Amino acid sequence: MKKYKAYCFDLDGTVYRGKKGIDSAIRFIHQLEEEQLDYFFVTNNSSKTPEQLQKVLADIGIDTPANRIYSSALATAKYVVQHFKEAKIFMIGSDGIRTALEAEGLDLVDTDEARPDVVVMGIDRTIDYMKLVKASLALQTGAKLIGTNEDIRFPSELGFIPGNGSFVNLVANVAQVEPVFVGKPSPVMLEVIQQEYGFEKEEMVMIGDNYDTDILCGIRFGCDTIHVNTGVVKTEIVLQKDQKPTYCIEEL
Amino acid sequence: MKKYKAYCFDLDGTVYRGKKGIDSAIRFIHQLEEEQLDYFFVTNNSSKTPEQLQKVLADIGIDTPANRIYSSALATAKYVVQHFKEAKIFMIGSDGIRTALEAEGLDLVDTDEARPDVVVMGIDRTIDYMKLVKASLALQTGAKLIGTNEDIRFPSELGFIPGNGSFVNLVANVAQVEPVFVGKPSPVMLEVIQQEYGFEKEEMVMIGDNYDTDILCGIRFGCDTIHVNTGVVKTEIVLQKDQKPTYCIEEL
Repeated sequence: MKKYKAYCFDLDGTVYRGKKGIDSAIRFIHQLEEEQLDYFFVTNNSSKTPEQLQKVLADIGIDTPANRIYSSALATAKYVVQHFKEAKIFMIGSDGIRTALEAEGLDLVDTDEARPDVVVMGIDRTIDYMKLVKASLALQTGAKLIGTNEDIRFPSELGFIPGNGSFVNLVANVAQVEPVFVGKPSPVMLEVIQQEYGFEKEEMVMIGDNYDTDILCGIRFGCDTIHVNTGVVKTEIVLQKDQKPTYCIEEL
Repeated sequence: MKKYKAYCFDLDGTVYRGKKGIDSAIRFIHQLEEEQLDYFFVTNNSSKTPEQLQKVLADIGIDTPANRIYSSALATAKYVVQHFKEAKIFMIGSDGIRTALEAEGLDLVDTDEARPDVVVMGIDRTIDYMKLVKASLALQTGAKLIGTNEDIRFPSELGFIPGNGSFVNLVANVAQVEPVFVGKPSPVMLEVIQQEYGFEKEEMVMIGDNYDTDILCGIRFGCDTIHVNTGVVKTEIVLQKDQKPTYCIEEL
């Protein structure tokens, strides 16, 4: 396999599953450290801050600075600031997206107190009927819908569980609007890494288990891609796609 | 308009919207009472028992015996007994579906205590992430998925809010299974009315605002249908369908 300068890893299904590290990926990352090659984590997980993700990685033996972790939460906050600077925002999500939106100085409101201009949704493990009602109604009075990512499901120790995309699509169908998704397969996060570190696209590679998010993100950005068979989309499915990854491997 | 012996009414969007009665429908029903014609309510609402729906109708001035109210909850319980008699059932839903399943002697379990054979879902205004996770995981270990109805959304005073079909489709997509829906447009509830009262199909009419549930239910059963323009699907949309209702009217 070609050597790259910047290795960009998905997390869930690529580096760990649930709380359990994937040994081959951990070994591969330790090897990159020995060779002093750059690596980054590019995740659609918007529920945790980079610091919280840093802790999760430390628990499986990977010590990395928080600024090497790029989450869809950060990218979403940047997108909202660019497109809706003075907007009132109704948010469904966890610490990661809340912290990112607040850090950009955005005005978070409840629908009881103000009519939101934007509904931002990231994965929320306390999501309930009333939150979905509030989002659905806000969209019907003209709010725009932005999702951190469009993952329908993601793997846990016990099986697949609902992802943020499931809930974004639910309220979009109820209100009959089209959502905007910021996370992978949108290339925004890879663009930020490239700009911050000055890599050429040919020096970068995107590594992940999910064809529809990780691999398409790399393809749309325009860098090489590596599919690993350790997560949500199996190699046999990936090989049927029109646009194939640069490499398909069992594990790293 | 032809006179029928049995008038079968949808509720939400046809007889009331939210908690507010639709005057023209209420007058029409009072007229049927004066002419001593039979009328029934055929609803995909599985959250309330017939007795609770009876109370809602009484509040808008319609006094009707509970046994004239046919809910998808009752029909679902009958369906489960027929197809999965000794099954363990994980249920998401409200009083209506719980009462109906228990009345048939079915064994309701939590996924913590037993592996369910069937997941039954009716509208649940306390639905949350953990319930959806439990349902998704049960389906991945082989449980069958049965929804009381497939309504994606339904009207409230403030706008459209998520319906049971939204949540059934969510877990079906996560687990990649096909759900079975028992409520309208399935003709099961009209079949039960016909059998219990001995009507001919030509003597019955199904009245509703929702083409995809009410009108298709009547068409699949084989009776006449009346679309009213007081709810979720507007007349101009209905007139574009291949199979049109017998009558399209503004209101009753």
